[in-house]
Amino acid sequence: MSISLQPVKGTRDFYPDDMRLRNWLFDIWRNASRRFGFEEYDACVLESEELYIRKAGDEITGQLYNFEDKGGRRIALRPEMTPSLARLVLQRQSSLTFPLKWFSIPQCFRYERMTRGRRREHFQWNADIVGQPDQMAELEALSLLLTAMRMMGLGPEHIRVHVNDRRLLDAILDHIQAPRENHLAVMVVMDKRDKITPEELNRLLEEQGLSPEMTARLNTFLAMRSLDEVLAELGECEAIASLRTLLERLEQSGLGGYARFDITVVRGLSYYTGTVFEVRDAGASLRAICGGGRYDSLLSTFGGQDVPAVGFGFGDVVILELLSDLGLLPQLDRELEFAVIPFSQNEAPLALQIAQGLREQGRTVSTDFSYRKLKKALQRADATGALKALLLLPDEAAQGLAVLRDMKTRTEETVPLAGIMEQKAD
Amino acid sequence: MSISLQPVKGTRDFYPDDMRLRNWLFDIWRNASRRFGFEEYDACVLESEELYIRKAGDEITGQLYNFEDKGGRRIALRPEMTPSLARLVLQRQSSLTFPLKWFSIPQCFRYERMTRGRRREHFQWNADIVGQPDQMAELEALSLLLTAMRMMGLGPEHIRVHVNDRRLLDAILDHIQAPRENHLAVMVVMDKRDKITPEELNRLLEEQGLSPEMTARLNTFLAMRSLDEVLAELGECEAIASLRTLLERLEQSGLGGYARFDITVVRGLSYYTGTVFEVRDAGASLRAICGGGRYDSLLSTFGGQDVPAVGFGFGDVVILELLSDLGLLPQLDRELEFAVIPFSQNEAPLALQIAQGLREQGRTVSTDFSYRKLKKALQRADATGALKALLLLPDEAAQGLAVLRDMKTRTEETVPLAGIMEQKAD
Repeated sequence: MSISLQPVKGTRDFYPDDMRLRNWLFDIWRNASRRFGFEEYDACVLESEELYIRKAGDEITGQLYNFEDKGGRRIALRPEMTPSLARLVLQRQSSLTFPLKWFSIPQCFRYERMTRGRRREHFQWNADIVGQPDQMAELEALSLLLTAMRMMGLGPEHIRVHVNDRRLLDAILDHIQAPRENHLAVMVVMDKRDKITPEELNRLLEEQGLSPEMTARLNTFLAMRSLDEVLAELGECEAIASLRTLLERLEQSGLGGYARFDITVVRGLSYYTGTVFEVRDAGASLRAICGGGRYDSLLSTFGGQDVPAVGFGFGDVVILELLSDLGLLPQLDRELEFAVIPFSQNEAPLALQIAQGLREQGRTVSTDFSYRKLKKALQRADATGALKALLLLPDEAAQGLAVLRDMKTRTEETVPLAGIMEQKAD
Repeated sequence: MSISLQPVKGTRDFYPDDMRLRNWLFDIWRNASRRFGFEEYDACVLESEELYIRKAGDEITGQLYNFEDKGGRRIALRPEMTPSLARLVLQRQSSLTFPLKWFSIPQCFRYERMTRGRRREHFQWNADIVGQPDQMAELEALSLLLTAMRMMGLGPEHIRVHVNDRRLLDAILDHIQAPRENHLAVMVVMDKRDKITPEELNRLLEEQGLSPEMTARLNTFLAMRSLDEVLAELGECEAIASLRTLLERLEQSGLGGYARFDITVVRGLSYYTGTVFEVRDAGASLRAICGGGRYDSLLSTFGGQDVPAVGFGFGDVVILELLSDLGLLPQLDRELEFAVIPFSQNEAPLALQIAQGLREQGRTVSTDFSYRKLKKALQRADATGALKALLLLPDEAAQGLAVLRDMKTRTEETVPLAGIMEQKAD
């Protein structure tokens, strides 16, 4: 039998080199989350399809990776984590103490029929604050996000947080007299702005009841660069006041350099109700790295009570591309303290004993039972990143001795086997 | 809309309490793997169904969680990790340096039509040594396994490693003249021994060409308790010599107390070719906790060259049950150094600044923007496991001061805000 060695179309393999990088990223996400007092949770990658069925035509639900299981159930590989989070919260709504600050690093899937090299899975850091109506939730979420960015070496010269508010977009759509029942669908269309042609955009907006004149007025708003411009046209409203405070408070927290108002930020998910934000490459590409916002009604759409919530999703693919482009990817070598190398099968049991003793102390130890020439074995030890090689040679071993080689300085010393366990860690 | 809040049948949710326990277990697995010089890898939970199609009727492939994707591909949620590992190794066989020592903690799935509360997914630590023909590979794998067990507090009084060899079973089946082409299928049947009735077992063996007399002779062998008994009946053979050395070397490594020869260990996977082992509860239940063995032909069945390999799979469900039964589950509290509590919205920006400053130092800090009564806020801080509460009160804040409360001793001191960052970590 000969089988395909490729991973399933659109999925990724993680060889040890790739995995070290993935773990480096996940560790930053976990570490930042813990500093902010977020607790980790998880749910299964399989969910009922019904969890993702929404009316507004979100891209994410249009590209659902779904199937029927052998029991006839409609199952989806989760496209995003927030509905699972909502499900968990609703399941224990009466016993949980709010606000919750939870995070997770789920793998998420999508299925497009016409995939041109686009991935069908990625990992996505999710952090959410549930049960905190105050804008402090937005500030905590944004601070968490930016702390993680800083831990990756990204400053305001590399990335920007573009903030907006769904209520502002609602006010503008009201102002241009777009049909109120279509606001959500219009926003989902607006989010596709950069991905489709202006003609296609106009056609989709027209389908949602926007006349060419209304679309022109909408575009005038979308070209505005400051809150003051919007204020002058629209008049004072809740969303403008809220955005103003948010930007002020980011300034007070020392994060002002990252933040800017951006009326074009919509986000593609239909459940956002207030603040929306997106982190973008500050360079020419302007690619979106991650985003999120406030969603105060998601839980009630699932049959629960309204619970205020703020959260974001941060995928692993674009950020690693950006860090690579900026030369900010870390050099991650294997970490190994000792390579224990027996000369022949005779020294193998001794090698095992010594390795076991060191490992019980918590040291990292590789063993090489290939019995190849010492020069080859040392090359291999070097390639595996070992700091020290412990050579077990027949004559020395008979006298209770071993040769300890420092792989960096290439110096050797003869040490008593009994003293190996007392070797200080570097 | 009201949706089901339950996870998909047979899958699990991990609330923060569950997740802390899962992370504790995964950390032990990762930490033990690293001490032994194993490198982490991963592959996607989706694989082509063909990867699991085998002839011998393994239970694992009979319970495949498979489906057709929208592009008509036959996809499976992986039931086990070894075929993915084989795929990864074969893909880069010419560029990888052997032996490989790799580990992973994949989620694995199965689908039975008649599931009586049985789970459809679990996480399974996999560690494999690929390209090491020497028995040292078995010893390294078993030492790794037992080191992880010890890290969980499990000694020889709790668990035992039962070792056997597929070549011994082959020799016995030859000895009783079972049809050679059915050996593998007979072993898969033998592995079901404890799960089906003796009558059913006899019927299945008969289907594989074993007469009642042959089955009786097989049962005589399976009742033997020592290698010497088997030797007396069967005569010296490679498998007996190999098992003898393996047990001796485990003794030399100080792991003899855990190990015993057990002729009934078969393992259900058809690809094992040599040593097989199973860790079992040493108590009355004898439940199998994990297992593995040598599989020297798996890669060639996938179309590559023969590559010697040894590995094991260690699931998260049974071990946590056992640890719970033994009272060995750890008490895992939330870890949080500071709870920062502003008295009102006026102190909120200050709270954010101080929290941000501490977090940038790597400290873990929660914030409480609920502005409830201090007594309530302190109760909440206590419930979240905070060691210290930092109270930001109007009068004190105006003087650049805050109240720092030690949550254990319930003592308070007034400290300058400027000095908070210099607070020593506990």
